[in-house]
Amino acid sequence: MNNYIIGILVSNLSGVLSRVSGMFTRRCFNIDSLTVGETDSSEFSRITIAFHGTSHDKEQIVRQLEKLYDVKEIEVLDEHNSVIRELALIKIRNTEESRSAIMTAVEVFRSKIVDYSPTTLVCELTGELSKINAFIELVRPYGIIEMDRTGIVAVERGENCLKTEAAD
Amino acid sequence: MNNYIIGILVSNLSGVLSRVSGMFTRRCFNIDSLTVGETDSSEFSRITIAFHGTSHDKEQIVRQLEKLYDVKEIEVLDEHNSVIRELALIKIRNTEESRSAIMTAVEVFRSKIVDYSPTTLVCELTGELSKINAFIELVRPYGIIEMDRTGIVAVERGENCLKTEAAD
Repeated sequence: MNNYIIGILVSNLSGVLSRVSGMFTRRCFNIDSLTVGETDSSEFSRITIAFHGTSHDKEQIVRQLEKLYDVKEIEVLDEHNSVIRELALIKIRNTEESRSAIMTAVEVFRSKIVDYSPTTLVCELTGELSKINAFIELVRPYGIIEMDRTGIVAVERGENCLKTEAAD
Repeated sequence: MNNYIIGILVSNLSGVLSRVSGMFTRRCFNIDSLTVGETDSSEFSRITIAFHGTSHDKEQIVRQLEKLYDVKEIEVLDEHNSVIRELALIKIRNTEESRSAIMTAVEVFRSKIVDYSPTTLVCELTGELSKINAFIELVRPYGIIEMDRTGIVAVERGENCLKTEAAD
């Protein structure tokens, strides 16, 4: 089993997200993370999907995605040559006993406190998956009230990019 | 037309994303942004959807979402009392002429350069939608090569939270 990240450029049409995610469901591939966002062009959206599977699974997924009319461009990202990031908002219980330990964790992980009440605080954290997971494990004993994670976005380093010729 | 943000707690099952996004497609509601991420419990994922529509549209969407078996909890977030964030990776053309203007923009917007080559650079930027859009407009003249945006995540300030009783 390997981890894969696929960047997909799709037409910005209603239903494209359910068609792409439906393909994964029908084929019983499990998505670890999915993000969909605007691109520089209003014609296209960009979907970033992380999943795990064999190299054969990966090839099958790419082949199936290529068949979808909305899909304009696909790229399997090289994990070792890409910038991979996720954003998380984590609401933690704020007590007199735990406060200073939480503040230290926030500082060490270069997190930011974006809300603060007498009983709760919200940390904003950006980084690679492993960093975000480590922070969550660290603050879990203090009481995580809720969290909202974006899933990962990724771009290859250097000149390589995901762009249709039409978008130029 | 108003902007709405809905937080949805769903069972972490295959196909739930295509069922939720398919509901929006069938009803012809257009999603501005969608993120799906892990929660503190492996049983549940959290979907954050931003869309615009009338207050009647919003009520209809909530009613339809409530009918889906996978949907465990729904909350329409109060935009004025929530922390709302997005993450973007933006690859920009790097030239001798534009470099210092880009570096100034990066500094002012508290962005971070996470990749740098002789011809390209990648900025990581976290913030509210308006901040990210303003940065993109600012650097657009220098040549955006590609970008990958997560879509927004949001949590309410203070004690209020999105959590099923089962997740406690």
